[in-house]
Amino acid sequence: MNEYLYKDISIGQTEEFQFEITNEKMKQFLDITGDVNPLHNDIHYAKEKGYNDVVVYGLLTTSALSTLAGVYLPGKYSLIHSVEINYAKPVFIKNSPLTVKGEVIEKDDRFSRITLKVSIFDKQNSKVCRGIMQIGVLY
Amino acid sequence: MNEYLYKDISIGQTEEFQFEITNEKMKQFLDITGDVNPLHNDIHYAKEKGYNDVVVYGLLTTSALSTLAGVYLPGKYSLIHSVEINYAKPVFIKNSPLTVKGEVIEKDDRFSRITLKVSIFDKQNSKVCRGIMQIGVLY
Repeated sequence: MNEYLYKDISIGQTEEFQFEITNEKMKQFLDITGDVNPLHNDIHYAKEKGYNDVVVYGLLTTSALSTLAGVYLPGKYSLIHSVEINYAKPVFIKNSPLTVKGEVIEKDDRFSRITLKVSIFDKQNSKVCRGIMQIGVLY
Repeated sequence: MNEYLYKDISIGQTEEFQFEITNEKMKQFLDITGDVNPLHNDIHYAKEKGYNDVVVYGLLTTSALSTLAGVYLPGKYSLIHSVEINYAKPVFIKNSPLTVKGEVIEKDDRFSRITLKVSIFDKQNSKVCRGIMQIGVLY
């Protein structure tokens, strides 16, 4: 886990990591949320809708941002203020692992807050999500 | 699971449901994400930071939006386009269950897309998150 302090973070700084999506994680996310939507759970329904497999929960993909902030950038002293995410393409389990990238695009000294530009790519290097996070840095 | 069609959804329409946060869900979210940040995992660290207990992962709370869209509003024919969420207050397990509310504030006929205003409240009726979701409706 990184332990960047606010003063040591610079605009342009980046971090990236791999994030796996598995059948097991799909089941755990279903357990957590109770989201029984068939697009994520019923391959026949997903095929009817023109997909080759069930679509990964968008908010399961988004959960990787918890790790981006809390482990990588800034790491230990992270406190997430806000998240914006746009889903550009559906994610499928076979296109895992995803690559999650964050880049510091702004620092706000008044609140010890950084702004990250976030991009998530699948195994084929297609961008599946893009977003913005604002994160307080405790020190 | 609701099965609202785009044409049957009206501005001002609301849905709400209860969402439980448990120790077990915290562990499952840790498994899914690998976010080992001590604010969510180490009560001594959380107390040092001025909290009475570990802070619930913001993105675990946010995962309730998967259920809001996929089960409640619009339900079955949901496809999430984007999510914006602001964390107003920390969430603690003892303040579960959360109440998740969505209200349709816009319809875009060009894309069969609805916009929801989202609010999440803890057991004390404090607003812990507010946000906006754009959701495509397949029919």
